Amino acid sequence: MTLIADAKTALYLGIDGGGSKCKVVLVTQDMRIIGEGLAGPANPLRGMAVATASIVTAAEQALSSAGLPRSDIGKLIVGAGLAGVNLPEYHQQFSAWQHPFARLYLTSDLHVACMGAHMGGDGAVIICGTGSCGLASANGKVLDVGGHGFPHGDSGSGAWFGLQLVHSVLRSKDGLIAETLMTALLQQALGVDHALALVSHFMHASPTEYARVAPLVFIAAEQGDELAHDIIVRGSRYMNEIAERLMAFAPVKLALIGGVAEKIRPYLADHVQRNIVAACQAPELGAVWFAKQAEFNNALHKNKAKVLV
Amino acid sequence: MTLIADAKTALYLGIDGGGSKCKVVLVTQDMRIIGEGLAGPANPLRGMAVATASIVTAAEQALSSAGLPRSDIGKLIVGAGLAGVNLPEYHQQFSAWQHPFARLYLTSDLHVACMGAHMGGDGAVIICGTGSCGLASANGKVLDVGGHGFPHGDSGSGAWFGLQLVHSVLRSKDGLIAETLMTALLQQALGVDHALALVSHFMHASPTEYARVAPLVFIAAEQGDELAHDIIVRGSRYMNEIAERLMAFAPVKLALIGGVAEKIRPYLADHVQRNIVAACQAPELGAVWFAKQAEFNNALHKNKAKVLV
Repeated sequence: MTLIADAKTALYLGIDGGGSKCKVVLVTQDMRIIGEGLAGPANPLRGMAVATASIVTAAEQALSSAGLPRSDIGKLIVGAGLAGVNLPEYHQQFSAWQHPFARLYLTSDLHVACMGAHMGGDGAVIICGTGSCGLASANGKVLDVGGHGFPHGDSGSGAWFGLQLVHSVLRSKDGLIAETLMTALLQQALGVDHALALVSHFMHASPTEYARVAPLVFIAAEQGDELAHDIIVRGSRYMNEIAERLMAFAPVKLALIGGVAEKIRPYLADHVQRNIVAACQAPELGAVWFAKQAEFNNALHKNKAKVLV
Repeated sequence: MTLIADAKTALYLGIDGGGSKCKVVLVTQDMRIIGEGLAGPANPLRGMAVATASIVTAAEQALSSAGLPRSDIGKLIVGAGLAGVNLPEYHQQFSAWQHPFARLYLTSDLHVACMGAHMGGDGAVIICGTGSCGLASANGKVLDVGGHGFPHGDSGSGAWFGLQLVHSVLRSKDGLIAETLMTALLQQALGVDHALALVSHFMHASPTEYARVAPLVFIAAEQGDELAHDIIVRGSRYMNEIAERLMAFAPVKLALIGGVAEKIRPYLADHVQRNIVAACQAPELGAVWFAKQAEFNNALHKNKAKVLV
């Protein structure tokens, strides 16, 4: 009885913690949004001090925007989807955090994106943004594929497309392959006029910097550039592979999200395209669904324990 | 007459300046080696202060090992092949350096590698080490291709092979492609037992770290792994493209050097393999050839000027 009473007045905080920002939402048991917050990176890769400070700051903002006192932070049931938390070392670090919340349930940012996309129900999601990865969740089981970081992972992502673009332009400039429209598009975009300037520009470039020029591949392909078209064919093959792996794991609907999603979608295999649905809710709301399900499972276990005793 | 008299007693310093070390050799006009030196990176990418300090340190070592006073540094005619100096901004910085030498002639590390490989004569060189690039020098004209840095350039290099290896292993682990022998080889080499540890290991990995695992691709291919073989086919295609571009520029012999050279050589096209010769001398001696030719050209111009005046 206590558990059910708690549940009715419970306050949930959902966190979508990525590499550049941490977005949180404060909701009631009946999924009514009563507060929001936004802070810096909540990614343990940037260091635990930064990540935990971002989370607490965003949580306090959400409480404040809901007209609740800061001290209510101790009442919050928190679901957090954090980039990098799928790596054991970071999961361990976060699990050891002496957090100020009532309870904290951890998972990956990808998992909460999937939970949000399908409002807590079974489904799959593919993120094709700066990076690329996919996750399917069905019957309480989860499969995630891809990701792994750039440049060795994240195939078919924005960063990958940008990398292929720069790679092709430099090889074309070297006379190793045919000329391509991408050369003029890239030079125009960066305001440079020769290949060596491109080399300087992309020396130690971040995935974000590569991803920024990814749309040029699609523009060139639309204008009939064969090399650009070949890059898209390769990129969409990677995305198809992820989609097929997820669909083989569970026959669920697939949400395709991220900055490159709409661009690559027309190039995906027909049976993959037919399976795509729009994402229903944002990842931070998915984090709330995740926390609620974790609470439910906890309650179930406790009740079972009571029966057994 | 003065110029010829100078030339007979001249001392040349040849510098091969890479990203990790700076190797110099002190030679007489008749190419007799009388001193050597070795110091840290002489690559302007690491900062001008570090690069110039490395060069001066190595030059002083060479003078000392030849039994010459430090003050003789002002007599040296220096040829320097420096990584990165092909980029305009770094060439400019180095040209502005108030160096302590009699004269300093600048070019890329690739150019002096070619000069060394062919003892100052016409020829071509392909470096297939951590990075990849090629250069042909014939009839006073020079063409260089490739390089450009990792991961957007340096295709077919050690870093590229390592990247493809990690990429393939992760995709295989994700069930996106077939199993590969490379997985066991990589895990054994790194002493890790699951994919997430691989992801941690290669997060922000340097080209050198990728290049370190490149040999595993060749080992797996030799043991019949198809995926590894496909990677080598793709890598050798890049190398073939560079070789063909250089051979089209000038019908010269080709030296193939660097850590991956001997591994990839059997996979190159027959007509490329037939054109390969052993490199005669080290790049630092190539830098001396470069300085000597620059001096010769200088003298020629001065004499012409005299005739004209």
